[in-house]
Amino acid sequence: MNNTFNEVLAAIMSHRSIRKFKNEKLTPSQIETIVRAAQMASSSRFMQAYSIIGLTDPALKRELSEITKTPYIEENGHLFIFCADLKRLTVMGTEQEKQDMRMMLESSVFYQIAVTDTALAAQNAVLAAESLGLGAVIIGSVSKDIRRLDQMLALPEYVVPLFGIAVGVPDQQPEIKPRLPLEAVYFENRYPSESDLKERIEAYDHDMRHYYQTRSENNRDAGWSRSHIDLLKLQLPLSGMTEYLHGKGLNVT
Amino acid sequence: MNNTFNEVLAAIMSHRSIRKFKNEKLTPSQIETIVRAAQMASSSRFMQAYSIIGLTDPALKRELSEITKTPYIEENGHLFIFCADLKRLTVMGTEQEKQDMRMMLESSVFYQIAVTDTALAAQNAVLAAESLGLGAVIIGSVSKDIRRLDQMLALPEYVVPLFGIAVGVPDQQPEIKPRLPLEAVYFENRYPSESDLKERIEAYDHDMRHYYQTRSENNRDAGWSRSHIDLLKLQLPLSGMTEYLHGKGLNVT
Repeated sequence: MNNTFNEVLAAIMSHRSIRKFKNEKLTPSQIETIVRAAQMASSSRFMQAYSIIGLTDPALKRELSEITKTPYIEENGHLFIFCADLKRLTVMGTEQEKQDMRMMLESSVFYQIAVTDTALAAQNAVLAAESLGLGAVIIGSVSKDIRRLDQMLALPEYVVPLFGIAVGVPDQQPEIKPRLPLEAVYFENRYPSESDLKERIEAYDHDMRHYYQTRSENNRDAGWSRSHIDLLKLQLPLSGMTEYLHGKGLNVT
Repeated sequence: MNNTFNEVLAAIMSHRSIRKFKNEKLTPSQIETIVRAAQMASSSRFMQAYSIIGLTDPALKRELSEITKTPYIEENGHLFIFCADLKRLTVMGTEQEKQDMRMMLESSVFYQIAVTDTALAAQNAVLAAESLGLGAVIIGSVSKDIRRLDQMLALPEYVVPLFGIAVGVPDQQPEIKPRLPLEAVYFENRYPSESDLKERIEAYDHDMRHYYQTRSENNRDAGWSRSHIDLLKLQLPLSGMTEYLHGKGLNVT
């Protein structure tokens, strides 16, 4: 591999998502550290196009946990909802300027930028939490009933929730999940041919089948590709996300 | 602030983008470390929905640098192009399964997931590079002529370039840029009213005007909000991104 080692790499390389937490709340100082760390990520044109909402109201947490059937949305040390936010950029403008900004804000380009900014910040948040001895998991399922979540958080135009991050004191120690082989993810100058790509994934599919069969929790009998193909071909309805985004003024054109 | 300190937080909190590099290539071991670090980020349903392409061909780097008028696309220790990639998930499927997967892959939900996965990985890559004593900058402008970049990299359906990351030995030491005040980014339970939000941004706009006026390079005379409003109201054409994405089978429905 290589002869470099430092604390940052050690932290990055030992990441695993934690989905079971001890009954212990984060301190205000821990929350502040995590948010400030998130803010230090790069941001396209320094737009800082995200907002982070701490969901602390027990009734709202319970409701969201029930909607999503995800117990660690309720049971954690703190729940952050990461939102793409293009609104903050506009609030100091005049009414005419706000109208003039619509064209660019409603584009898929700016939606992509806001999602990217939000995720860059989120990864810093996860690493910061882990560096404090806490565990974290990014939760996509908060969007299961995205209109209800939008309403809970009183989100205005140009602000949409992308995912949650539950943080807390770990009450489990899952294995590190093996990633795709480097040669199936990193290429030089050109994307490989489909047959090359297949070759590079085959051994991984085999290994992951073994991993899923033998890991300590949530066992199953399928390789990496097969799990995803079987899910994706189900043609599940995707909860009107496009219409929701359009209604929020995002990803329209 | 808080009484916690560790090497990971120190690294996160001292981030600044580096746009001028010494003429020194990354070693294969450094490249591998950065890619493996990127891969350790969380990924939605473990889809690992991104690919990373090292652009090393000098002619291609020069061309991309000229298209984007961005010299550090050519002059760096290594240039990574981060691509959202939903193709890899599909290659082991039968032809019928590939057809059946279209509906979900073409949705805005899966596009958002792929962009998120890619950016989470990218932030790890930036931090890993910095932990090795290197500098990095995320470059959105690689998409300026996205069809040409797509062609350069021979990207198939479901694979689109999102941004580049230039990495190298720093040849500048820019100031750390002040982020939005925490109370303008982090909220509890509810997004604030527009007037609350304005109040929380005003002092920052004032401070950033001073920062932009006095920083060592690339000075200008505008606050944070004003810079963005003046840009966004220009109604610049956004290079047919939506049509490009649709042509790649992404963000269609």
